[in-house]
Amino acid sequence: METIRPLYKECSSLYNKSQPHLHKCRELAFAAHEKVTSEAEYSFYGQYGGTPAVAYNVFRISGSEPSRPIRPDLYVHDHAEFTAVFDSFVGSLSGGTKDWSEKEIHQATAAVYTAVMSFASCYDLWQRTSRKTPGTFFEILVAGLLKKMLPSATFSKHISLSALVQDSGAKDSDNSISDNNDAEDLGANVSTDLVIGSPDRTGGVVVPLKITTRERIVQPFAHQRILDSAFGEGVYHSLLLCISETQLDDRTQSVKQVCVPGTVKLFQKYLAPIVGLYYCDVPQRYDSDDIKNIMPVRSFGDFFTDIEERLEAQKTNGN
Amino acid sequence: METIRPLYKECSSLYNKSQPHLHKCRELAFAAHEKVTSEAEYSFYGQYGGTPAVAYNVFRISGSEPSRPIRPDLYVHDHAEFTAVFDSFVGSLSGGTKDWSEKEIHQATAAVYTAVMSFASCYDLWQRTSRKTPGTFFEILVAGLLKKMLPSATFSKHISLSALVQDSGAKDSDNSISDNNDAEDLGANVSTDLVIGSPDRTGGVVVPLKITTRERIVQPFAHQRILDSAFGEGVYHSLLLCISETQLDDRTQSVKQVCVPGTVKLFQKYLAPIVGLYYCDVPQRYDSDDIKNIMPVRSFGDFFTDIEERLEAQKTNGN
Repeated sequence: METIRPLYKECSSLYNKSQPHLHKCRELAFAAHEKVTSEAEYSFYGQYGGTPAVAYNVFRISGSEPSRPIRPDLYVHDHAEFTAVFDSFVGSLSGGTKDWSEKEIHQATAAVYTAVMSFASCYDLWQRTSRKTPGTFFEILVAGLLKKMLPSATFSKHISLSALVQDSGAKDSDNSISDNNDAEDLGANVSTDLVIGSPDRTGGVVVPLKITTRERIVQPFAHQRILDSAFGEGVYHSLLLCISETQLDDRTQSVKQVCVPGTVKLFQKYLAPIVGLYYCDVPQRYDSDDIKNIMPVRSFGDFFTDIEERLEAQKTNGN
Repeated sequence: METIRPLYKECSSLYNKSQPHLHKCRELAFAAHEKVTSEAEYSFYGQYGGTPAVAYNVFRISGSEPSRPIRPDLYVHDHAEFTAVFDSFVGSLSGGTKDWSEKEIHQATAAVYTAVMSFASCYDLWQRTSRKTPGTFFEILVAGLLKKMLPSATFSKHISLSALVQDSGAKDSDNSISDNNDAEDLGANVSTDLVIGSPDRTGGVVVPLKITTRERIVQPFAHQRILDSAFGEGVYHSLLLCISETQLDDRTQSVKQVCVPGTVKLFQKYLAPIVGLYYCDVPQRYDSDDIKNIMPVRSFGDFFTDIEERLEAQKTNGN
């Protein structure tokens, strides 16, 4: 971890200063991949008992719990192959993404999944106490990818929703978009993750990023509701990006997909609708008609094509 | 804990079967109080550095972390005095509460605070792993008190909000009020805590109970929003009951009050308004004009007078 930790700090520091950081994320992803694939055993753990069943691997070292579950059909284990896939994916972000082939979409999913899972597995095996770090790397990496893809868009790291309650003019002021440094409120999740907009108008696309959602699933819907109440419906749209909803089950040596379909339907209908739910490892329970009838559920790679279309549509609508 | 654990199980079992359980809660509160006051040292820990400063005690035994912080001006340490205060409080619930004196209001706060903190401190000192049990006891105890106070009201343990998404007629069906046994969704917080209504109409008072709120502060506001969306505004009202927002700070031997005023204002204004926030140990930051201008913040004892008035008002309004 003597290599990984300082690289992560550099990434995080560049990101916080809004400086280009994708090159450093790439270096970190490659270092994490090399470390975990060369120093840990990678082998079958168990199945998720769905239809069809899904096999999961884990990384293991002696003297530690295994890493989180990893899908071998999405994770690129060979180091040379991973670096090639990652660089090819990053290269393909520049030429427009909305006409991507199925192969390019799958490549995007595999590149992000492998980068994030390599980094997260290093922390699972060698620094289990830093539980929030993998989620932050996921956010930083995706921000870097989107900045490369959308060079003329504006990026805000957070919309400080708390600023909305400072009454004077919050409703139509861009001052509400800023980093959330409200020390008084550090305990609460009232800032969004990434927000993508354009310099000449209010509103945009909110991109909450969560490796897994768990009980935090309420946040993107509650934030969308607050944005709808404060700015009017249709000004902001949320696209939720996740990696997976898996969990090891020690007792049965199997893998669970922790899903809450009733909750998702409830929030989508009665809290506020989000416009898409994206996963690298799409949970089977969400990849079904009752959910997809009320909200698009798609692979992570599809996000890159959808976001380009959505931003163009917003431009056309003048909002 | 050989006395406490089985008594807790009896309480919980009676409550789950909707059988009278207040007598058993009383027995448990007295047993927990006797155990912790006789077996643990009760002494000053540190101050919350507010205006004015507030002194906090803790319970200590050798070989364990101290208990959570306890306000000696609210906690009744003498066993005979506590049992007298508790029984006097329970007795006073029967005669109507809306004309309670200040003394009766304080007595109610002290009785609930002492009962819950005694039980929670037992778990802090002797069974720290059962982190959710004190919160459940708090819910069970308050349900017992309210059933005694309001014998003709109907009580639902939970409104299963997920049932609302079963489309056919959910909007005007009482079937939406039931225990939440949706195994599929056990991971998510989409059932309310107590709901008090009357047999002849839809709607009522929702009473979320949380020893401390922390990041769960979003839940009562999100639930209120969902109820407003599904049933219309004004059909359900939420009154949030808490014990305190305190936390020991080892490093400085002081006590923090963990508050998120900006978040509370944001949720109250843009998610959905709740009609009252009640604490035994009211945090100073919430007991201030900027919060009280948008939402009543009152002592726990005031809840018993307010709830009677609110239910009467609902009756008069026919809703």
